Amino acid sequence: MSKLVIGGSLAFDAIETPFGKTDKIIGGATPYIALSAGYFGAKSHIISVVGSDFTDSYFEILHKRGIDTTGVKVDKDNKTMFWAGVYNKDMNQRTTLTTELNCFEKFSPVVPESYQEADVLMLGNITPKIQQSIINQMKKRPKLIVMDTMNFWMDTALNDLEDTIKMVDVLTINDEEARQLSGEFILLKAAKKILAKGLKYLIIKKGDNGALLFSNDGGVFFAPALILDSVVDPTGAGDSFAGGFSGYIASKGKTDFETVKAAVVAGSVAGSFCCEKFGTENLQNLTEKDIKERVKRFEEMTKFSF
Amino acid sequence: MSKLVIGGSLAFDAIETPFGKTDKIIGGATPYIALSAGYFGAKSHIISVVGSDFTDSYFEILHKRGIDTTGVKVDKDNKTMFWAGVYNKDMNQRTTLTTELNCFEKFSPVVPESYQEADVLMLGNITPKIQQSIINQMKKRPKLIVMDTMNFWMDTALNDLEDTIKMVDVLTINDEEARQLSGEFILLKAAKKILAKGLKYLIIKKGDNGALLFSNDGGVFFAPALILDSVVDPTGAGDSFAGGFSGYIASKGKTDFETVKAAVVAGSVAGSFCCEKFGTENLQNLTEKDIKERVKRFEEMTKFSF
Repeated sequence: MSKLVIGGSLAFDAIETPFGKTDKIIGGATPYIALSAGYFGAKSHIISVVGSDFTDSYFEILHKRGIDTTGVKVDKDNKTMFWAGVYNKDMNQRTTLTTELNCFEKFSPVVPESYQEADVLMLGNITPKIQQSIINQMKKRPKLIVMDTMNFWMDTALNDLEDTIKMVDVLTINDEEARQLSGEFILLKAAKKILAKGLKYLIIKKGDNGALLFSNDGGVFFAPALILDSVVDPTGAGDSFAGGFSGYIASKGKTDFETVKAAVVAGSVAGSFCCEKFGTENLQNLTEKDIKERVKRFEEMTKFSF
Repeated sequence: MSKLVIGGSLAFDAIETPFGKTDKIIGGATPYIALSAGYFGAKSHIISVVGSDFTDSYFEILHKRGIDTTGVKVDKDNKTMFWAGVYNKDMNQRTTLTTELNCFEKFSPVVPESYQEADVLMLGNITPKIQQSIINQMKKRPKLIVMDTMNFWMDTALNDLEDTIKMVDVLTINDEEARQLSGEFILLKAAKKILAKGLKYLIIKKGDNGALLFSNDGGVFFAPALILDSVVDPTGAGDSFAGGFSGYIASKGKTDFETVKAAVVAGSVAGSFCCEKFGTENLQNLTEKDIKERVKRFEEMTKFSF
């Protein structure tokens, strides 16, 4: 089975949206990425750190879906990272109530020997230096290295971020971040400038307005967000997108534009499931049929003959 | 040649964007609709009113592209409607500096005999009562009646608007207006409620985030906005969309979902050309080759195989 290695946060989240609220549930980027990737044929391997309060029942959520957690360090002297947030009525904006880094504060990732020979490496949104450390520990370069990041690192660690971008093939950011990173307002111009940093592909995420894929040889592809009956919690939609995307590429073993386009659709499908229930709940229990049906809906929603 | 009748405003606009400004240029909804429709095989026939200052050179812009203006009344005692506005840096928002209705204030549309037997009737965003009057003057119902409207009529003439919606097949509004008209935040729910008023199709325009098409039997289609090198003036993009859309349907003579999907693509293509220059400038000088190339770009941007 194809091998996807994922580095990033593993945490507890407490989420409130107009449709309800949760207690502490499993969160951070890696569960969304790993669970989503599994539906597209990849075996996920997580690199992260948790505290003593991350008990077996949480690991069980991941193990039940075949996710390898050998690379998750348990820091017995600290608690697991914790994030709490409240979404506005339109759910495109949220307010962070608290972020407790806890064990994540001194996280120094170690890539286990069994994680070597990965097909794809997916780096969730964490300190650029940690992303670099994981890349440097891969003895053989994966076929594709994908990284997510955010404006926070552009503001606080731009040089490190630029160095990390030079080491990867695909960057995923949102439209505002693309504008900030490039200094260009028009997205096509922003994309060209960012691709010139050495990327093969750039993905600009636009939330419920879909995602744009740009290739370094001029290709442009757009995937809309699926139109859903119900959206109860957008937390993790971007990470689920990254999981569907990187999982699809890992399982296909190819990185040409046609494959990467389909991978964007896989990401969009994963993101759509994520939003329908709180946290990772929906992503824990999907079937192959669920995925197939939604890919078909996606095709119906975008295909036309002129 | 297939016949498209267009009712709506014909005006002068003075536009300022971050990329420049114009003096009084030909504006209002109907020039954008009529010029765009022409590129998809329809002959446009405008119903509107202008003042004594709307001299031959302005009519010439329309006549040069084969547009019939028999139904444009010249009110010699008044001036042409005038709108001036300034766009913000991100161009998704604009401030109206002035709207002078002038001759439009007492506009009472008359449909000329030569406009009868229309294939499609496209009603630009004007008073719902005027839209009704035009529909009522069509002796034979066109194959498709399309209407545009805006939040202003929801606020000031909701009953008239609801009555007009009952008389048409397709409504085009933006996402915020769809939410206002339905009282539903989730767009799929909003669309279902609005379609239930008796429409065949609803189009929700999302500006540079594309357009959604909903059919009354559950079909959903999404067309992204094309990714452009340069956007200098978004004025009229929605009207150009309506023109490409209604012109395409008129020339095909069919109103099934597959045809209407392709018509949304035609609308998106027309809207993309509109934004590249000020006012209707770009729409005055396109070639068949320009249109074909852009439809091809649109296909490349959305097609994938999973």
